[in-house]
Amino acid sequence: MIRPLLSASALSLAATALWADPLPSWNAGETKSAIISFVEAVTDPASETYVTPADRIAVFDNDGTLWAEQPAYFQLFFAIDQVKKLDASALTSDALKAAAAGDVEALLATGKEGLLEVLAASHTGMSVADFQASVAAWLDEARHPTTGRPYDAMVYQPMLELLVYLRDEGFDTYIVSGGGIDFIRVLAPDAYGIDEAQVVGSSLVTEYVLGEAGPVLMKMPDLFFNDDKAGKPVAINHHIGKRPIFAGGNSDGDFQMLEWTTSGEAPGFGLYVHHTDADREWAYDREGHIGVLNRGLDEGAEHGWHFADMAKDWAVIFPATE
Amino acid sequence: MIRPLLSASALSLAATALWADPLPSWNAGETKSAIISFVEAVTDPASETYVTPADRIAVFDNDGTLWAEQPAYFQLFFAIDQVKKLDASALTSDALKAAAAGDVEALLATGKEGLLEVLAASHTGMSVADFQASVAAWLDEARHPTTGRPYDAMVYQPMLELLVYLRDEGFDTYIVSGGGIDFIRVLAPDAYGIDEAQVVGSSLVTEYVLGEAGPVLMKMPDLFFNDDKAGKPVAINHHIGKRPIFAGGNSDGDFQMLEWTTSGEAPGFGLYVHHTDADREWAYDREGHIGVLNRGLDEGAEHGWHFADMAKDWAVIFPATE
Repeated sequence: MIRPLLSASALSLAATALWADPLPSWNAGETKSAIISFVEAVTDPASETYVTPADRIAVFDNDGTLWAEQPAYFQLFFAIDQVKKLDASALTSDALKAAAAGDVEALLATGKEGLLEVLAASHTGMSVADFQASVAAWLDEARHPTTGRPYDAMVYQPMLELLVYLRDEGFDTYIVSGGGIDFIRVLAPDAYGIDEAQVVGSSLVTEYVLGEAGPVLMKMPDLFFNDDKAGKPVAINHHIGKRPIFAGGNSDGDFQMLEWTTSGEAPGFGLYVHHTDADREWAYDREGHIGVLNRGLDEGAEHGWHFADMAKDWAVIFPATE
Repeated sequence: MIRPLLSASALSLAATALWADPLPSWNAGETKSAIISFVEAVTDPASETYVTPADRIAVFDNDGTLWAEQPAYFQLFFAIDQVKKLDASALTSDALKAAAAGDVEALLATGKEGLLEVLAASHTGMSVADFQASVAAWLDEARHPTTGRPYDAMVYQPMLELLVYLRDEGFDTYIVSGGGIDFIRVLAPDAYGIDEAQVVGSSLVTEYVLGEAGPVLMKMPDLFFNDDKAGKPVAINHHIGKRPIFAGGNSDGDFQMLEWTTSGEAPGFGLYVHHTDADREWAYDREGHIGVLNRGLDEGAEHGWHFADMAKDWAVIFPATE
């Protein structure tokens, strides 16, 4: 009577695999169902909309989509913390003084030029390796101003599950962010399971310099690429060379990425994370000082895009702390 | 007596796997041994120089390294063949007229400006998708002027084996070419088993344009990135975000890529393909009109780089034709 027992056990195992919820932190609802239906429709070889694994490309914005972005972009807090370490004599402008004092509001009041000064002071004139070492040290030490969590613990649990689910189903998952490519690469492998080579972002000009101790890649002050809005499909083509079939974003900066993803011949899924939960996260869209979402809210439905309403669709926001 | 038979068969299988030559088209010699020793030293977990699979990045130049580049870059033949299709009224310069007449020498005599005109006429003012469709059609039809082979049958068999060997040993293999990224991506998956996302190259500015039929990515006339010389380590950082441990090239345009690869903390292997075989391929280095190799020959040894002498080290140059 060994065989029947084995069969029953095998059957139970198969049933578990078949029925296990790939997105346990997503509440049942239209958006969760739409994600799962889409993935099944492109991965089932018998499906008319089957997509070969090599073409299962999924792209995600980072700030506000995979991790939080309030009260300001986390990369800005990194920049401010670097400016705090400068000698007083280096604080030659209102923006740098505001940053050194940790006064985010005063810094933002200095406008784009002030932000660029803080960016230059914290992100340039050093090698990529030294920069990334300082980002790693900052991630270890710094804590978010309102939650007290490490910044890389402010990733969204439901999105982590979505990344794993997509990869389990043969997708390659990419980050396509307006944030800095060298910055995000420091955290992407551990925080998201995304390899450095699958991170796309904004970047400064980098220069290859041969010094006495050997060659280094130096971060220069000029912008090389602004990975935002219409720049996102351009960067996707540049780095990936294929049109994605799944795109997730949260702001109008992601509009063209979703548009590009969902206007190919293959089926495409557009997902907007909608920040609706002032209790557990933040609530903002049209009026946000960052992560502004107007066009996406107005035109998303006619494009067939889906919205993850954080208050309604997400059972959990952040991963449990240890 | 079934078990001993099975064991013997298993043993024989293991022995075959252990002793099979991973590089059958490479003649026994210093270079082949050095490649295999290096791969073993970075993949054996017991080795002091073990490198984790995620960091096993190998980068290869394309023209003259993975496929031939004589009597001129193959992408130039593509450009010429596109210009041949233009109306006579569009041939507004000596360069365009020379290209349309298929006169490579006269075209080269018009210098860099003439080449840029031919590049503009054949590579810009169209979408990336339309451009790549024309490259695919060209690869199907065009034949190399001296061998009569399809261009993508002029890949080097020993290098194909090296790519497979490295991937079998857990490496990610990338192309890092001075040639056009959109061009190479058309052939890389079939010719080399290299995914589009693992192709790095030179590129023109691309623009996201929303037309009546939906969005397209248009190829514009301005240069976006020149992936040559010191640009290669920069592009490697931009696309891959890690320092490679294996680099293959054939010209001084690859010098900095080999230098960057072999000056990290991890062990690094630098390989120069040396065109020494006038009978089976072409013989050129210091005096070549393309693929010039001076600094690499002068300084390669002191960097510990290895040379694949095509006449001596390669038993076969091109794959067998059907």
